[in-house]
Amino acid sequence: MEIDDIVNKIVELDDNRRIGDLHKFLEDVNSADFPMIFEGIKDERIMMVYRLLSKEKAAEVFVELDHDRQEELIRLLTDNEIKNIMNEIYMDDAADMIEEMPADVVKRILANTKSDNRKIINELLKYPDDTAGTLMTTEFIDLDENMTVDQAFKVIKEKGLRKETVYNCYVLAKDRTLLGVVDVRSLLVSERDVFVKDIMDTNVIKVGTLEDQEEIVKLFDKYSCVAVPVVDKQDRLVGIITIDDAIDVMQEETLEDFEKMAAMKPTEDTYMKTSVFTHAKHRITWLLVLMISAMITGGIIEHFENAIATLPLLVAFIPTIMGTGGNCGSQASTLIIRGLAMDEITTKDLLRAMLKELKVGLLVGIGLSIIETAIIMIQYHDLNTALVISATLILTVIVSKQLGVLLPIGAQKLGLDPAIMAAPLLTTVSDTVSVLMFFSIASSVFGL
Amino acid sequence: MEIDDIVNKIVELDDNRRIGDLHKFLEDVNSADFPMIFEGIKDERIMMVYRLLSKEKAAEVFVELDHDRQEELIRLLTDNEIKNIMNEIYMDDAADMIEEMPADVVKRILANTKSDNRKIINELLKYPDDTAGTLMTTEFIDLDENMTVDQAFKVIKEKGLRKETVYNCYVLAKDRTLLGVVDVRSLLVSERDVFVKDIMDTNVIKVGTLEDQEEIVKLFDKYSCVAVPVVDKQDRLVGIITIDDAIDVMQEETLEDFEKMAAMKPTEDTYMKTSVFTHAKHRITWLLVLMISAMITGGIIEHFENAIATLPLLVAFIPTIMGTGGNCGSQASTLIIRGLAMDEITTKDLLRAMLKELKVGLLVGIGLSIIETAIIMIQYHDLNTALVISATLILTVIVSKQLGVLLPIGAQKLGLDPAIMAAPLLTTVSDTVSVLMFFSIASSVFGL
Repeated sequence: MEIDDIVNKIVELDDNRRIGDLHKFLEDVNSADFPMIFEGIKDERIMMVYRLLSKEKAAEVFVELDHDRQEELIRLLTDNEIKNIMNEIYMDDAADMIEEMPADVVKRILANTKSDNRKIINELLKYPDDTAGTLMTTEFIDLDENMTVDQAFKVIKEKGLRKETVYNCYVLAKDRTLLGVVDVRSLLVSERDVFVKDIMDTNVIKVGTLEDQEEIVKLFDKYSCVAVPVVDKQDRLVGIITIDDAIDVMQEETLEDFEKMAAMKPTEDTYMKTSVFTHAKHRITWLLVLMISAMITGGIIEHFENAIATLPLLVAFIPTIMGTGGNCGSQASTLIIRGLAMDEITTKDLLRAMLKELKVGLLVGIGLSIIETAIIMIQYHDLNTALVISATLILTVIVSKQLGVLLPIGAQKLGLDPAIMAAPLLTTVSDTVSVLMFFSIASSVFGL
Repeated sequence: MEIDDIVNKIVELDDNRRIGDLHKFLEDVNSADFPMIFEGIKDERIMMVYRLLSKEKAAEVFVELDHDRQEELIRLLTDNEIKNIMNEIYMDDAADMIEEMPADVVKRILANTKSDNRKIINELLKYPDDTAGTLMTTEFIDLDENMTVDQAFKVIKEKGLRKETVYNCYVLAKDRTLLGVVDVRSLLVSERDVFVKDIMDTNVIKVGTLEDQEEIVKLFDKYSCVAVPVVDKQDRLVGIITIDDAIDVMQEETLEDFEKMAAMKPTEDTYMKTSVFTHAKHRITWLLVLMISAMITGGIIEHFENAIATLPLLVAFIPTIMGTGGNCGSQASTLIIRGLAMDEITTKDLLRAMLKELKVGLLVGIGLSIIETAIIMIQYHDLNTALVISATLILTVIVSKQLGVLLPIGAQKLGLDPAIMAAPLLTTVSDTVSVLMFFSIASSVFGL
């Protein structure tokens, strides 16, 4: 059912005061669709719809909403309703939400939270941003190695956690250190009297609480995990990260990379939700840096003022030379930056990659210059100009492709983010170099 | 354990002829680590190591390898060994592999495949690329709605599929149409005598066999699924797509977007594995298009030859104007392209986005031009030049940000991929526009 149809159905049922039917209908709607539904119905109706949901559904839907809508709801809900939500939702979601709320709302939320949960939330809030500690949920199923499969099933049934957290069960020693992991599939295909220790996998992929989220996502990708356990410095299990959270991080990191590669400071919110002022703030820093760097290229052109005065036609080729250089550089740097991000390329590959780009650059440069020569000959019937432009093109392509390898890998070696060496900065550097080569070659050929 | 340590251990055990220990050691190594391990050991040792693996492990490792290595192995393995692999691996993996192999290898593989499996593979190979049909696996657990939870557990135990496929069980009618889904968690927390029909979810998120893989990935992201059922036109269940395959597609699509946005045709292989010639081929088409488009900008500059002859200083500002325009445009277009890809922005948002960018452009443009005016006044003490550049800058920023919204959304409206409207093409268009504005303003102010 499309969102529009759901919205129409809600409006119809509400207009006809068929509240019982509306309640039943809403329970069957996927929780993940509610943010879009709330966008589609009038503000007055949102609270009515929300209050019709069962306790469990209300909590599920709450978690799906964005922080602005959550804040709005909290302000309108009674203390009892807030209590219900805080009893139902998972503590990692609670901590995420609280981090984004203004102080008065946080106060009201915590006043309506059980004291053990309050402690867990406070613990979670202590971890630095973008680490395993902030991603993990503290709810998981822990088993004893001497349990049988049958006993393990009883533990799972009693705990009855949400779906992402039951696929793996963790076997802990008395001191809560992690001994092994049993996936739900192994439990299901084993006989009921088999011991957990005989089917557990002791070769566990795990991370520390301070592990960076980017590294964690790579683990999920490489080992096709559905959950990864998080341990403290004493190897004690403190939480697990589930695949749904890993996917969110994946999307977030991708968007960040795109933003960095287009010379912007990453934003937390979606495009439409980010204010005009924040957009401007996140863009202007790099634009300023790049604008001032472009003046260096301008300075080089100014330096060759006499050459230009003698042969004004040269200026007409500046866009071609600069554009081709920039595009070639960004092709190479994009591939290198992605390769570094995916661990397919390491800093050790510098020379191999440079050699590869040298060959690619030679092929591409020669190809482009043949076409360019033909065009110039047809348009201006001037072989000297054609030769100068062609030579410059080949050199520009090669040099900018080398820069496209060198700058990102160099940044990585220096511990900087390679993504900042993407198109915008690289283009500015390659502009300078290519314009310098162009006028130097032209001056010496034409004796300017 | 790091890959290097694993490789050293293998070499040590092999050198000391401790084959039994080596066998035991290899069984505990994660299958996903073998591609890297094989890169680290000598070719002669690869076959020895591979042959030491148990039947199940050998099949698991085989699936993890890239197609070149798979082909190499197939050529070296006996018919019996190939049979073992084909009996163990899943048919979607088999179809993926066969698609990449040369005809003689395919022949040998199929000759060693059971006839029912051969049929399944042939069916899978018929689906168009990048659709649900090529992504899905045909192994899944199907239940009858009148079974009890206990009976369902028996079915799961007998089938004993790989881990990604047991999280959801599908409830089918007699004609194999999909009635509902039961997740393993619901089975585990229910009493043993409850009927499947009473706990199944009938509101199933499903896709058709021809659904595009990009849309499928969005479903996984939005609804936090671990598996999505695939149905044919008659709503009969034909396969399921599991989260691990969805993540692979996610990574693949991201890389493709990066490549398109840097003016390249996407490659299937990793950077290092792609040949120099393929790299060159995938890059030169767009470079040519962009190079020739840049000549339009060149033509505009040529048109203003007299203005340049009178005031050569103007040329020195071309890089600043062109660079700023290009960067502003690519900032806007990157955000719009990502927003479109993530369904956060639709073509209906055109006017809202343009208005937003108008405001951002005004703020950024004024900010940049204040700094630029200051720099020009310090460097050249020339108010007129400063005013011309500043006015051009503001206009350039605004216009290129508008283009950054208009071109991707326009492409989407025309059914084209918005990513091709990213930085390179946009920069070329904004170069032309900004140079034209620059010289027009300069000519009229200075009366050139």
